[in-house]
Amino acid sequence: MPQTQVAALLSLPHGMPKEGRVRAVVDAVLPSVDGGRFAVKRIAGEAFEVTAHCFTDGHDVLRVLLQWWREGETTVHETPMTLSNNDVWHGGFVPPVPGRYVYTVLAWVDGFASWHHELTRRVDEADIRIAAQVGALEIAAAGARATGEDAQALARAAAELAKAATDRAIDGPRLKALALDPALETLAGKYPDRRFEARYGAELSLVVDRERARFSSWYELFPRSAGTELGQHGTFADVEARLPAIARMGFDVLYFPPIHPIGRIDRKGKNNALVTEPDDVGSPWAIGSEEGGHKHILPALGTPEDFRHLVAEAGKHGLEIALDIAFQCAPDHPYVKQHPGWFRWRPDGTVQYAENPPKKYQDIYPFNFECDDWQGLWTELKSVIDHWIGEGVSIFRVDNPHTKAFPFWEWAISEIKREHPEVLFLAEAFTRPKVMHRLAKLGFSQSYTYFTWRNSKEELTAYFTELSSSPGHEYFRPNAWPNTPDILHEQLQSGEAPMFRLRLTLAATLAANYGIYGPAYELLEHLPRNPGSEEYLDSEKYQLRHWRTEMPHSLAPFIGRLNRIRRDNPALQTNATLRFLPVENNQLLAYAKSSDDGSNVVVTVVNLDPHQTQSGWIGLTPESIGVPAGQSFQVHDLLSDQRFLWQGEWHYVQLDPQHTPAHVLRVRRRTRDENDFEYFL
Amino acid sequence: MPQTQVAALLSLPHGMPKEGRVRAVVDAVLPSVDGGRFAVKRIAGEAFEVTAHCFTDGHDVLRVLLQWWREGETTVHETPMTLSNNDVWHGGFVPPVPGRYVYTVLAWVDGFASWHHELTRRVDEADIRIAAQVGALEIAAAGARATGEDAQALARAAAELAKAATDRAIDGPRLKALALDPALETLAGKYPDRRFEARYGAELSLVVDRERARFSSWYELFPRSAGTELGQHGTFADVEARLPAIARMGFDVLYFPPIHPIGRIDRKGKNNALVTEPDDVGSPWAIGSEEGGHKHILPALGTPEDFRHLVAEAGKHGLEIALDIAFQCAPDHPYVKQHPGWFRWRPDGTVQYAENPPKKYQDIYPFNFECDDWQGLWTELKSVIDHWIGEGVSIFRVDNPHTKAFPFWEWAISEIKREHPEVLFLAEAFTRPKVMHRLAKLGFSQSYTYFTWRNSKEELTAYFTELSSSPGHEYFRPNAWPNTPDILHEQLQSGEAPMFRLRLTLAATLAANYGIYGPAYELLEHLPRNPGSEEYLDSEKYQLRHWRTEMPHSLAPFIGRLNRIRRDNPALQTNATLRFLPVENNQLLAYAKSSDDGSNVVVTVVNLDPHQTQSGWIGLTPESIGVPAGQSFQVHDLLSDQRFLWQGEWHYVQLDPQHTPAHVLRVRRRTRDENDFEYFL
Repeated sequence: MPQTQVAALLSLPHGMPKEGRVRAVVDAVLPSVDGGRFAVKRIAGEAFEVTAHCFTDGHDVLRVLLQWWREGETTVHETPMTLSNNDVWHGGFVPPVPGRYVYTVLAWVDGFASWHHELTRRVDEADIRIAAQVGALEIAAAGARATGEDAQALARAAAELAKAATDRAIDGPRLKALALDPALETLAGKYPDRRFEARYGAELSLVVDRERARFSSWYELFPRSAGTELGQHGTFADVEARLPAIARMGFDVLYFPPIHPIGRIDRKGKNNALVTEPDDVGSPWAIGSEEGGHKHILPALGTPEDFRHLVAEAGKHGLEIALDIAFQCAPDHPYVKQHPGWFRWRPDGTVQYAENPPKKYQDIYPFNFECDDWQGLWTELKSVIDHWIGEGVSIFRVDNPHTKAFPFWEWAISEIKREHPEVLFLAEAFTRPKVMHRLAKLGFSQSYTYFTWRNSKEELTAYFTELSSSPGHEYFRPNAWPNTPDILHEQLQSGEAPMFRLRLTLAATLAANYGIYGPAYELLEHLPRNPGSEEYLDSEKYQLRHWRTEMPHSLAPFIGRLNRIRRDNPALQTNATLRFLPVENNQLLAYAKSSDDGSNVVVTVVNLDPHQTQSGWIGLTPESIGVPAGQSFQVHDLLSDQRFLWQGEWHYVQLDPQHTPAHVLRVRRRTRDENDFEYFL
Repeated sequence: MPQTQVAALLSLPHGMPKEGRVRAVVDAVLPSVDGGRFAVKRIAGEAFEVTAHCFTDGHDVLRVLLQWWREGETTVHETPMTLSNNDVWHGGFVPPVPGRYVYTVLAWVDGFASWHHELTRRVDEADIRIAAQVGALEIAAAGARATGEDAQALARAAAELAKAATDRAIDGPRLKALALDPALETLAGKYPDRRFEARYGAELSLVVDRERARFSSWYELFPRSAGTELGQHGTFADVEARLPAIARMGFDVLYFPPIHPIGRIDRKGKNNALVTEPDDVGSPWAIGSEEGGHKHILPALGTPEDFRHLVAEAGKHGLEIALDIAFQCAPDHPYVKQHPGWFRWRPDGTVQYAENPPKKYQDIYPFNFECDDWQGLWTELKSVIDHWIGEGVSIFRVDNPHTKAFPFWEWAISEIKREHPEVLFLAEAFTRPKVMHRLAKLGFSQSYTYFTWRNSKEELTAYFTELSSSPGHEYFRPNAWPNTPDILHEQLQSGEAPMFRLRLTLAATLAANYGIYGPAYELLEHLPRNPGSEEYLDSEKYQLRHWRTEMPHSLAPFIGRLNRIRRDNPALQTNATLRFLPVENNQLLAYAKSSDDGSNVVVTVVNLDPHQTQSGWIGLTPESIGVPAGQSFQVHDLLSDQRFLWQGEWHYVQLDPQHTPAHVLRVRRRTRDENDFEYFL
């Protein structure tokens, strides 16, 4: 270790503090992520609640403020915090717009308030007289800190109180009432003595996103398979024709795998073959050829104008286009010749292709994030994202971010969001838990999850309880996918509609953010490339597909219904309120969610068995959903439109998977209209 | 808020880091208290274990080091950490002596180790040849970082490997074996490339104390009541005469209330009376008179020489003298005249006396920690402690630290321990939980607890589970007292020996640090000043008492036995391993503790009912105490010397409170001697 570093290490802070009269303590400001190293995440326009432990020596009175400001703005806001119990103080604010905010907590021992509180306890007249004299000094001091009329009023009040304190004609109770005058308390309270203010040891960060970060429904589609005829390469125009159908299914994010030129060197053939036939189109993730790289569009899909037209058309249908950010290169990507220094060349003149064990990407070169020109590499990669923001894109799904250096993401995301706070990033990292959490901390707005592999009641309960709990819940926003082009789970390989419906229902009701890879999902695509594989047979990753989206077995109407339920019910647009309900049947999974204000409550009961009817008793006390104990309430199944009257704590449920995978029950409480007519709201 | 402060608030770090190639991540280094703001506490000579979450992007190999040093020393130690699973790395060290230490964690992506790991997976000969060439470069680079013979050896090995890589006479397996040579791995591993090393964001502090901080048995005594005759003021010489008896009871800390001159102005009379009689001795906590202040000794007790003699004599009996630090003044304390600025004077020329609601101390002035001369006040108060350290005292019980400014304690304790790391401080703060925890964080070595008021099985279980759990356990060392001069709990007011025995047993076996106020405790002193009060009648706080310590009903022999059991059993000298055991009887409390290495296990079963015999079945699986399932083991009651053979999970226990309050059972496991004779160890 360098000697200079050793010297720096050896000195702990010693000696007296600059100001030893700071008697207030501010501790445990929450929420915070790793003591402020990373930002908590919230949504613009929604209340952000903060707690802190604040106290002082002895029994003097504290005043506590929550201080916050938006990065780049000069206004520092201060809002009072209030004591609940056990030295815990509460405060909050509503961040008005997306952006990065900073917050911290201040406290001081308030001389005036301490005196005021002390005097309320005094009974003895001599004590009251002394206290009144002390109070006159406190009020005069507040006056000295005030200006204008307030200063004059306080000086006057101080003089009057000092005089009254020695006036034997004014008795104890009257003197006390005079000193404790509420108007005087308010006025003096405006000018506190904050010289010895304590400030929490950290300034905590808050990243505020727009609502879609919390609540979104994704639909993934390969534009090249959108062609209207078998064998024809799809175009952006073809995708435009599909927009109404996708919008009818109720999605709001339409995500495309990479749309860039595809490499020709080492191109993959159908089903990941290492040899190609002449018409093979290659993997969209093998980005770059002589036609261009990450800022270009595969000519077969269309022109930049076509793309901008599609973005605009999608917007008209309430759909945002999300693009794939895959920072890697086909061997014939222009970067390889222009910036050979960005790759790790071996002594034999080759580059080791990318791997994400056990997967091998022979058609892809990884960037070398340890290269000497790392600044040049970072700058260029960020400019790719900036380019597509310029083209109207503000959601990015990032491919394998965990195989790129973490500091790059922290820098790139924070820099981009500083200029474009509306931009969202979804991390596609299916890897170890701590790595996934790190990416979320570094700035990714949403994260793929293990949902696909959580199938039993026990697994789903444990995993979604973890996801909806602190501290992860403060920064990790799960996005649940029943399938992706990389993951055809074994459970789906039978192709049975009940299983597809139940996995979809779980994703859509357990997670506020979810998505499907279509049309594979709604058309029940289910054959694996080989037994035991999670790869699709004839995967679109390596070839064109032609989807017959109008087939009668399509789940599109069911999906549309589910997404409409999600839109209508704020309870399903958040993860924070999720709680699982007891059912004595291992095939029934029941859970409740509610909106932040508690007004909207949805109870979902899913039959995890796609073959047999299952029944059981769900435990749900009326009080837990805002219904007075003993009163009955209605639950309205938003899938079937059936209504049931429930009362007491245990409620019978029976689900036939051939008919429906679940009850998605909105709780309707008794209420009365102006004519005293009772109905369920 | 001042404008300069606003400006400072607005800038968040932006722009690229200085070094973007730091790919390793170090996170969640534990233990830590508030992210390193405060120190973790441990004992010299005992292993200190550290964990961290470390990982990197992709699948390269990390090397992780725990770095630590003792404050004031120039040697920085580095010990390798090892991966368990889920990206958690483990390391540790044994702090050799008391003092303040700093530790942190470093990690880097190791080029050589990554290459080595990669090569182990290669099978294809062409791959092996390329890998061997890459390896030759890695080895050469290690050689360039080495010096002397190692440098030459590595250069030679690199050249050989490079040559072999292109030598067709050497086949793949042979080339691989050559490259993976373990000796070469060890040699190259000595010279890692640490240019892009990641360092944890915080340097964490560790305060290392001597063993007594963890394990101590306190006896509190008023020296002035040690006189041999009724009405005679006790002296240090009288206390010396009592040392053998106190040592026989097995205590190791002998704590005195303040021994300083006692104020005469507003002196309290017997039973806290506001008027005195001529012979009233006043409260020892009303410190200071014309005879001197905090650095002086009440002449009636003896001289400084007498005190030093007593300290030395106590040492011969294995007893350390602990003094009371009560930072407050009688109105006639010399400070009041010499430093009037240290007090808060009211307009009528008086000082408001001290209060710790609901208690009032009319004979005491508090210091004003917000005074202009706070530096002078701090310096003087610290010098009081330094004075008594000079007189041979190294344990201090601090009176009401929560009514003095917190920053003072943090400064004073750390400054004192920097020069005298052996010094220990016990915080006498019976106040709100967060305040008590703050004092422990600020540096107090031990803390009084709520033990006195935790009486039911449920209360004791909840409270001691909390005390033995993280994060509090990392810095808060409980010291449990069944009584103090201020607290005669209602439970003891009947004066029944079984209750005194059971509360003593609980304190001594639940907490590694405990104490009693004697001889009041062993002589079953139990009358309150008035009904409903926790004050003793005729309390020594306000008058001399004459104790007949040789009375036959004294609990001294029982106390001696308990303290001997504590000394003999490491399990009872720690709190970390405490776990409560199930018993289906609300009057029986059962718990197990074990030594760190698991070799010593003590199971305690206490009958919380002082009147009735109680019985029940204790749940304790053999495996949980290191006994093979199905094997029987012996439990040896160290109080009664009875032995029981236990087998299976449930064990019957019956306790008659007239006979014994508890079983304190040492687990004896089966073992065999050299003659294959089986016995219980």
